[in-house]
Amino acid sequence: MVRTAKPDAPACDAPNDEAYGLRAGEIAAELPAQSDASLYYIGRIRTPWTSREACPKNARGSDEVCTVEVDPRWAAALNGLESVSHVILLYWMDKARRDLVLQSPRHYAEHRGTFALRSPARPNPIAVSVARLVRIDGNKLLVVGLDCLDETPLLDIKPYFASTDSVPDALVGWHAARER
Amino acid sequence: MVRTAKPDAPACDAPNDEAYGLRAGEIAAELPAQSDASLYYIGRIRTPWTSREACPKNARGSDEVCTVEVDPRWAAALNGLESVSHVILLYWMDKARRDLVLQSPRHYAEHRGTFALRSPARPNPIAVSVARLVRIDGNKLLVVGLDCLDETPLLDIKPYFASTDSVPDALVGWHAARER
Repeated sequence: MVRTAKPDAPACDAPNDEAYGLRAGEIAAELPAQSDASLYYIGRIRTPWTSREACPKNARGSDEVCTVEVDPRWAAALNGLESVSHVILLYWMDKARRDLVLQSPRHYAEHRGTFALRSPARPNPIAVSVARLVRIDGNKLLVVGLDCLDETPLLDIKPYFASTDSVPDALVGWHAARER
Repeated sequence: MVRTAKPDAPACDAPNDEAYGLRAGEIAAELPAQSDASLYYIGRIRTPWTSREACPKNARGSDEVCTVEVDPRWAAALNGLESVSHVILLYWMDKARRDLVLQSPRHYAEHRGTFALRSPARPNPIAVSVARLVRIDGNKLLVVGLDCLDETPLLDIKPYFASTDSVPDALVGWHAARER
């Protein structure tokens, strides 16, 4: 069962304020009745950006140094990470709606499937960002290359392995089409 | 509070069989009493590997074509993804223990912090894999570049953006040291 945008019938199991409502042509699925697994927040990401409008358009849009604060419970798990140049950060975009199947991000003319986009709105709103590690101070990582809101919940930190994570010639057809 | 390996005192809130028990020198944290967010499985990954021993050592260790089966609920969210060459797959390593802070993966002589490793054992056992998209058949993606167990729960599919995801010259100091 799917829902389409109707201005007079806001979705009842999703945020229905203007900022997170359905845009024309967007389609939402009914979310499953139950969840399947659970997450622990392991820290917070501190950035200079406190509203969605203020965030850089993407992770290469700012060279601001941001701070990743790891809960003391997990601080010892940073052992050995100081020798890496880049990290993969997973974080939870807790303000995003989770039921969109087709969506129209700002600046995009066409609708596209959620899995063809990097939009925060997705069934499991987990962001993946590659950031340059500047240094580690105790339980804090200083990094460059984030674009998220201040206080975003942190889910994981991984070392970036160029051998398996880097594909310099990867292509996105609809990016190319947009630039023509 | 931390726990260290004691053969006669298995951790009570973690799997205590041999395969997933603490190795000498490993340290576990007490998990938080409550979780903070929940996940929906959005499909399953089908691979030829049904035991951990059979899995390739890493995602470039096999050119086997694997199948990512997306639940019908989310199938329309694949719209537009056919134009990308590579995808980022997030999946849930549901058999991994979640309390390890310092660990000693097989083949590694030293202990290292969980966040310096790509081991499945981590507070939120979410794997990130970059795979080459061969083609999409309805709700199924055929991909190359996975190393996970058959039936692994799928969490997310994202288009891979070389502009933000690819760092060909990223370094891992302890990899280099291991090769010397």
